[in-house]
Amino acid sequence: MSLFSKPIKTLDDLFVHTLQDIYYAENQIVKNLPTMVEKASNPELKAAFQQHLTETEGQVKRLEQVFQMHGQPVKGVTCQAMDGILAEAKEIIGDCGDAEVCDAAMLSAAQAVEHYEMTRYGSLIAYANQLGRHDCANVLKQTLEEERAADQKLTMIAESKVNRQAA
Amino acid sequence: MSLFSKPIKTLDDLFVHTLQDIYYAENQIVKNLPTMVEKASNPELKAAFQQHLTETEGQVKRLEQVFQMHGQPVKGVTCQAMDGILAEAKEIIGDCGDAEVCDAAMLSAAQAVEHYEMTRYGSLIAYANQLGRHDCANVLKQTLEEERAADQKLTMIAESKVNRQAA
Repeated sequence: MSLFSKPIKTLDDLFVHTLQDIYYAENQIVKNLPTMVEKASNPELKAAFQQHLTETEGQVKRLEQVFQMHGQPVKGVTCQAMDGILAEAKEIIGDCGDAEVCDAAMLSAAQAVEHYEMTRYGSLIAYANQLGRHDCANVLKQTLEEERAADQKLTMIAESKVNRQAA
Repeated sequence: MSLFSKPIKTLDDLFVHTLQDIYYAENQIVKNLPTMVEKASNPELKAAFQQHLTETEGQVKRLEQVFQMHGQPVKGVTCQAMDGILAEAKEIIGDCGDAEVCDAAMLSAAQAVEHYEMTRYGSLIAYANQLGRHDCANVLKQTLEEERAADQKLTMIAESKVNRQAA
Protein backbone atom coordinates (compact mmCIF):
# COMPACT_ATOMS: atom_id res chain seq x y z
CA MET A 1 0.00 0.00 0.00
CA SER A 2 1.17 3.56 -0.05
CA LEU A 3 1.01 7.15 1.06
CA PHE A 4 -2.64 7.66 0.28
CA SER A 5 -3.57 10.70 -1.77
CA LYS A 6 -7.18 10.57 -0.50
CA PRO A 7 -9.11 8.67 2.17
CA ILE A 8 -10.23 5.20 1.17
CA LYS A 9 -13.99 5.09 1.59
CA THR A 10 -15.08 2.26 -0.69
CA LEU A 11 -13.80 -1.10 -1.91
CA ASP A 12 -13.41 0.56 -5.31
CA ASP A 13 -11.08 3.17 -3.75
CA LEU A 14 -9.09 0.34 -2.16
CA PHE A 15 -8.91 -1.50 -5.50
CA VAL A 16 -7.61 1.61 -7.31
CA HIS A 17 -5.06 2.41 -4.56
CA THR A 18 -3.78 -1.16 -4.56
CA LEU A 19 -3.43 -0.94 -8.37
CA GLN A 20 -1.42 2.28 -7.93
CA ASP A 21 0.71 0.62 -5.24
CA ILE A 22 1.61 -2.40 -7.36
CA TYR A 23 2.12 -0.21 -10.46
CA TYR A 24 4.81 1.72 -8.56
CA ALA A 25 6.25 -1.58 -7.24
CA GLU A 26 6.44 -3.21 -10.70
CA ASN A 27 8.17 -0.13 -12.12
CA GLN A 28 10.73 -0.22 -9.30
CA ILE A 29 11.39 -3.88 -10.09
CA VAL A 30 11.96 -3.02 -13.78
CA LYS A 31 14.54 -0.44 -12.63
CA ASN A 32 16.33 -2.78 -10.21
CA LEU A 33 16.34 -6.17 -11.95
CA PRO A 34 19.04 -5.26 -14.51
CA THR A 35 21.58 -4.91 -11.66
CA MET A 36 20.63 -8.36 -10.37
CA VAL A 37 20.93 -9.82 -13.90
CA GLU A 38 24.40 -8.27 -14.11
CA LYS A 39 25.56 -9.40 -10.65
CA ALA A 40 24.24 -12.99 -10.77
CA SER A 41 27.05 -15.54 -11.19
CA ASN A 42 25.06 -18.72 -11.72
CA PRO A 43 23.94 -18.82 -15.38
CA GLU A 44 20.51 -20.30 -14.56
CA LEU A 45 19.87 -17.57 -11.99
CA LYS A 46 21.03 -14.89 -14.43
CA ALA A 47 18.67 -16.29 -17.10
CA ALA A 48 15.78 -16.47 -14.60
CA PHE A 49 16.29 -12.80 -13.63
CA GLN A 50 16.49 -11.81 -17.32
CA GLN A 51 13.30 -13.72 -18.11
CA HIS A 52 11.54 -12.14 -15.14
CA LEU A 53 12.60 -8.67 -16.29
CA THR A 54 10.86 -9.30 -19.63
CA GLU A 55 7.80 -10.67 -17.82
CA THR A 56 7.69 -7.68 -15.46
CA GLU A 57 7.68 -5.27 -18.41
CA GLY A 58 4.62 -7.16 -19.68
CA GLN A 59 3.02 -6.97 -16.22
CA VAL A 60 3.41 -3.17 -16.22
CA LYS A 61 1.55 -3.08 -19.57
CA ARG A 62 -1.18 -5.33 -18.15
CA LEU A 63 -1.66 -2.96 -15.20
CA GLU A 64 -1.97 -0.03 -17.63
CA GLN A 65 -4.66 -2.04 -19.42
CA VAL A 66 -6.56 -2.59 -16.14
CA PHE A 67 -6.38 1.14 -15.26
CA GLN A 68 -7.92 1.89 -18.67
CA MET A 69 -10.58 -0.83 -18.38
CA HIS A 70 -11.57 0.62 -15.01
CA GLY A 71 -11.67 4.22 -16.32
CA GLN A 72 -8.78 5.39 -14.15
CA PRO A 73 -5.64 7.35 -15.04
CA VAL A 74 -2.41 5.33 -15.02
CA LYS A 75 -0.68 6.36 -11.80
CA GLY A 76 1.69 4.97 -9.17
CA VAL A 77 1.97 5.79 -5.47
CA THR A 78 5.00 5.10 -3.29
CA CYS A 79 5.02 1.52 -1.98
CA GLN A 80 7.13 1.48 1.18
CA ALA A 81 7.04 -2.31 1.34
CA MET A 82 8.64 -2.74 -2.10
CA ASP A 83 11.09 0.09 -1.35
CA GLY A 84 12.13 -1.81 1.80
CA ILE A 85 12.48 -5.16 0.02
CA LEU A 86 14.59 -3.58 -2.76
CA ALA A 87 16.72 -1.57 -0.30
CA GLU A 88 17.62 -4.88 1.37
CA ALA A 89 18.44 -6.46 -1.99
CA LYS A 90 20.80 -3.56 -2.80
CA GLU A 91 22.55 -3.96 0.56
CA ILE A 92 23.10 -7.65 -0.13
CA ILE A 93 24.72 -6.85 -3.46
CA GLY A 94 26.98 -4.33 -1.73
CA ASP A 95 27.86 -6.33 1.38
CA CYS A 96 28.20 -9.88 0.14
CA GLY A 97 31.80 -11.10 0.20
CA ASP A 98 31.39 -14.22 -1.93
CA ALA A 99 29.82 -14.49 -5.40
CA GLU A 100 28.00 -17.76 -4.70
CA VAL A 101 26.62 -16.62 -1.33
CA CYS A 102 25.60 -13.37 -3.06
CA ASP A 103 23.62 -15.45 -5.57
CA ALA A 104 21.81 -17.20 -2.70
CA ALA A 105 21.01 -13.86 -1.04
CA MET A 106 19.81 -12.24 -4.31
CA LEU A 107 17.65 -15.27 -5.01
CA SER A 108 16.02 -14.96 -1.58
CA ALA A 109 15.47 -11.21 -2.15
CA ALA A 110 13.84 -11.97 -5.51
CA GLN A 111 11.51 -14.45 -3.80
CA ALA A 112 10.53 -11.77 -1.27
CA VAL A 113 9.63 -9.55 -4.25
CA GLU A 114 7.56 -12.37 -5.82
CA HIS A 115 5.72 -13.04 -2.57
CA TYR A 116 4.85 -9.36 -2.13
CA GLU A 117 3.46 -9.31 -5.64
CA MET A 118 1.53 -12.56 -5.15
CA THR A 119 -0.23 -11.26 -2.06
CA ARG A 120 -1.16 -7.90 -3.66
CA TYR A 121 -2.37 -9.49 -6.91
CA GLY A 122 -4.36 -11.98 -4.80
CA SER A 123 -6.08 -9.07 -3.03
CA LEU A 124 -6.63 -7.18 -6.31
CA ILE A 125 -8.28 -10.22 -7.93
CA ALA A 126 -10.55 -10.72 -4.89
CA TYR A 127 -11.54 -7.01 -4.92
CA ALA A 128 -12.16 -7.03 -8.70
CA ASN A 129 -14.39 -10.09 -8.45
CA GLN A 130 -16.29 -8.60 -5.52
CA LEU A 131 -16.80 -5.39 -7.56
CA GLY A 132 -18.12 -7.42 -10.51
CA ARG A 133 -15.03 -6.56 -12.59
CA HIS A 134 -14.31 -10.13 -13.66
CA ASP A 135 -12.71 -8.73 -16.83
CA CYS A 136 -10.07 -6.93 -14.71
CA ALA A 137 -9.68 -10.02 -12.49
CA ASN A 138 -8.96 -12.18 -15.52
CA VAL A 139 -6.16 -9.87 -16.71
CA LEU A 140 -4.65 -9.72 -13.20
CA LYS A 141 -4.80 -13.53 -12.86
CA GLN A 142 -2.37 -13.89 -15.77
CA THR A 143 0.21 -11.93 -13.80
CA LEU A 144 -0.46 -13.87 -10.58
CA GLU A 145 0.20 -17.12 -12.43
CA GLU A 146 3.48 -15.72 -13.82
CA GLU A 147 4.57 -14.64 -10.32
CA ARG A 148 3.79 -18.08 -8.87
CA ALA A 149 5.71 -19.79 -11.68
CA ALA A 150 8.68 -17.41 -11.22
CA ASP A 151 8.75 -18.15 -7.48
CA GLN A 152 8.63 -21.92 -8.06
CA LYS A 153 11.43 -21.67 -10.61
CA LEU A 154 13.57 -19.72 -8.11
CA THR A 155 12.91 -22.37 -5.42
CA MET A 156 14.05 -25.06 -7.87
CA ILE A 157 17.22 -23.12 -8.76
CA ALA A 158 17.93 -22.46 -5.06
CA GLU A 159 17.61 -26.08 -4.00
CA SER A 160 19.28 -27.72 -7.00
CA LYS A 161 22.09 -25.22 -7.65
CA VAL A 162 22.58 -21.93 -5.87
CA ASN A 163 22.37 -22.97 -2.20
CA ARG A 164 24.55 -26.03 -2.90
CA GLN A 165 27.23 -23.90 -4.52
CA ALA A 166 27.08 -21.40 -1.65
CA ALA A 167 27.48 -24.10 1.03
CA MET B 1 17.09 -8.89 5.20
CA SER B 2 18.69 -6.01 7.01
CA LEU B 3 21.45 -3.51 7.57
CA PHE B 4 24.28 -5.99 7.77
CA SER B 5 26.60 -5.70 10.73
CA LYS B 6 29.35 -7.64 8.90
CA PRO B 7 29.96 -8.87 5.34
CA ILE B 8 28.22 -12.13 4.49
CA LYS B 9 30.91 -14.54 3.35
CA THR B 10 29.34 -17.96 3.87
CA LEU B 11 25.92 -19.61 3.68
CA ASP B 12 26.12 -19.91 7.47
CA ASP B 13 26.52 -16.09 7.72
CA LEU B 14 23.49 -15.69 5.45
CA PHE B 15 21.48 -18.14 7.58
CA VAL B 16 22.31 -16.25 10.79
CA HIS B 17 21.57 -12.84 9.24
CA THR B 18 18.23 -14.07 7.89
CA LEU B 19 17.41 -15.41 11.37
CA GLN B 20 18.22 -11.96 12.83
CA ASP B 21 16.10 -10.28 10.14
CA ILE B 22 13.01 -12.40 10.81
CA TYR B 23 13.55 -12.16 14.59
CA TYR B 24 13.31 -8.35 14.30
CA ALA B 25 10.30 -8.72 11.96
CA GLU B 26 8.40 -11.10 14.28
CA ASN B 27 8.98 -8.77 17.23
CA GLN B 28 7.64 -5.82 15.21
CA ILE B 29 4.54 -7.88 14.40
CA VAL B 30 4.02 -8.63 18.10
CA LYS B 31 4.15 -4.86 18.75
CA ASN B 32 1.75 -3.93 15.93
CA LEU B 33 -0.87 -6.70 15.94
CA PRO B 34 -2.68 -5.48 19.09
CA THR B 35 -3.71 -2.28 17.22
CA MET B 36 -5.11 -4.38 14.38
CA VAL B 37 -6.98 -6.60 16.88
CA GLU B 38 -8.46 -3.45 18.42
CA LYS B 39 -9.38 -1.77 15.09
CA ALA B 40 -10.89 -4.83 13.35
CA SER B 41 -14.69 -4.61 13.11
CA ASN B 42 -15.52 -8.06 11.78
CA PRO B 43 -15.49 -10.51 14.72
CA GLU B 44 -13.90 -13.32 12.68
CA LEU B 45 -11.10 -11.01 11.54
CA LYS B 46 -10.58 -9.75 15.10
CA ALA B 47 -10.37 -13.36 16.35
CA ALA B 48 -7.94 -14.30 13.54
CA PHE B 49 -5.65 -11.36 14.43
CA GLN B 50 -5.83 -12.30 18.12
CA GLN B 51 -5.00 -15.94 17.37
CA HIS B 52 -2.11 -14.87 15.14
CA LEU B 53 -0.72 -12.64 17.89
CA THR B 54 -0.56 -15.68 20.20
CA GLU B 55 1.04 -17.74 17.42
CA THR B 56 3.59 -15.00 16.69
CA GLU B 57 4.66 -14.91 20.33
CA GLY B 58 5.32 -18.66 20.01
CA GLN B 59 7.25 -18.09 16.77
CA VAL B 60 9.54 -15.60 18.55
CA LYS B 61 10.28 -18.29 21.16
CA ARG B 62 10.97 -20.83 18.39
CA LEU B 63 13.49 -18.44 16.78
CA GLU B 64 15.22 -18.02 20.16
CA GLN B 65 15.44 -21.83 20.33
CA VAL B 66 17.03 -21.95 16.84
CA PHE B 67 19.60 -19.26 17.77
CA GLN B 68 20.54 -21.39 20.80
CA MET B 69 20.65 -24.65 18.81
CA HIS B 70 22.98 -22.95 16.33
CA GLY B 71 25.23 -21.48 19.07
CA GLN B 72 24.38 -17.88 18.24
CA PRO B 73 23.31 -15.01 20.51
CA VAL B 74 19.64 -14.01 20.19
CA LYS B 75 19.73 -10.79 18.16
CA GLY B 76 17.59 -8.83 15.70
CA VAL B 77 18.66 -6.51 12.88
CA THR B 78 16.45 -3.89 11.24
CA CYS B 79 14.29 -5.39 8.51
CA GLN B 80 13.36 -2.58 6.13
CA ALA B 81 10.87 -4.77 4.27
CA MET B 82 8.80 -5.49 7.39
CA ASP B 83 9.11 -1.84 8.48
CA GLY B 84 7.68 -0.84 5.07
CA ILE B 85 4.82 -3.36 5.20
CA LEU B 86 3.86 -2.25 8.73
CA ALA B 87 4.16 1.48 7.88
CA GLU B 88 1.61 0.89 5.11
CA ALA B 89 -0.68 -0.98 7.50
CA LYS B 90 -0.56 1.95 9.95
CA GLU B 91 -1.44 4.39 7.16
CA ILE B 92 -4.43 2.29 6.21
CA ILE B 93 -5.70 2.35 9.77
CA GLY B 94 -5.25 6.13 9.83
CA ASP B 95 -6.64 6.97 6.38
CA CYS B 96 -9.53 4.56 5.95
CA GLY B 97 -12.91 6.30 6.04
CA ASP B 98 -15.12 3.24 6.44
CA ALA B 99 -14.84 0.47 9.05
CA GLU B 100 -15.63 -2.36 6.64
CA VAL B 101 -13.23 -1.12 3.95
CA CYS B 102 -10.64 -0.67 6.71
CA ASP B 103 -11.12 -4.36 7.60
CA ALA B 104 -10.47 -5.33 3.96
CA ALA B 105 -7.32 -3.17 3.86
CA MET B 106 -6.00 -4.49 7.19
CA LEU B 107 -6.64 -8.04 6.06
CA SER B 108 -4.61 -7.42 2.88
CA ALA B 109 -1.79 -5.86 4.95
CA ALA B 110 -1.78 -8.91 7.23
CA GLN B 111 -1.49 -11.17 4.20
CA ALA B 112 1.52 -9.12 2.99
CA VAL B 113 3.08 -9.76 6.42
CA GLU B 114 2.36 -13.52 6.13
CA HIS B 115 3.83 -13.69 2.64
CA TYR B 116 7.02 -11.94 3.73
CA GLU B 117 7.38 -14.42 6.56
CA MET B 118 6.64 -17.41 4.31
CA THR B 119 9.37 -16.44 1.85
CA ARG B 120 11.98 -15.83 4.58
CA TYR B 121 11.16 -19.03 6.48
CA GLY B 122 11.30 -20.88 3.14
CA SER B 123 14.83 -19.55 2.58
CA LEU B 124 15.88 -20.29 6.18
CA ILE B 125 14.68 -23.91 5.93
CA ALA B 126 16.54 -24.36 2.61
CA TYR B 127 19.75 -22.89 4.10
CA ALA B 128 19.46 -25.00 7.27
CA ASN B 129 19.02 -28.22 5.26
CA GLN B 130 21.94 -27.29 3.02
CA LEU B 131 24.09 -26.67 6.12
CA GLY B 132 23.09 -30.07 7.55
CA ARG B 133 21.07 -28.39 10.35
CA HIS B 134 17.95 -30.48 9.81
CA ASP B 135 17.14 -30.00 13.52
CA CYS B 136 16.88 -26.23 12.97
CA ALA B 137 14.95 -26.77 9.73
CA ASN B 138 12.39 -28.91 11.55
CA VAL B 139 11.74 -26.20 14.15
CA LEU B 140 11.42 -23.51 11.44
CA LYS B 141 9.03 -25.70 9.41
CA GLN B 142 6.50 -25.58 12.26
CA THR B 143 6.37 -21.80 11.90
CA LEU B 144 6.15 -21.94 8.10
CA GLU B 145 3.12 -24.24 8.38
CA GLU B 146 1.47 -21.83 10.84
CA GLU B 147 2.09 -18.88 8.48
CA ARG B 148 0.60 -20.78 5.53
CA ALA B 149 -2.45 -21.74 7.58
CA ALA B 150 -2.89 -18.14 8.81
CA ASP B 151 -2.72 -16.84 5.22
CA GLN B 152 -5.29 -19.40 4.02
CA LYS B 153 -7.60 -18.49 6.90
CA LEU B 154 -7.34 -14.79 5.99
CA THR B 155 -8.14 -15.58 2.33
CA MET B 156 -11.23 -17.49 3.49
CA ILE B 157 -12.35 -14.60 5.73
CA ALA B 158 -11.70 -12.07 2.91
CA GLU B 159 -13.72 -13.94 0.32
CA SER B 160 -16.58 -15.13 2.52
CA LYS B 161 -17.03 -12.05 4.74
CA VAL B 162 -14.81 -8.99 4.76
CA ASN B 163 -14.66 -8.11 1.04
CA ARG B 164 -18.42 -8.74 0.70
CA GLN B 165 -19.20 -6.41 3.57
CA ALA B 166 -16.85 -3.75 2.16
CA ALA B 167 -18.44 -3.87 -1.33
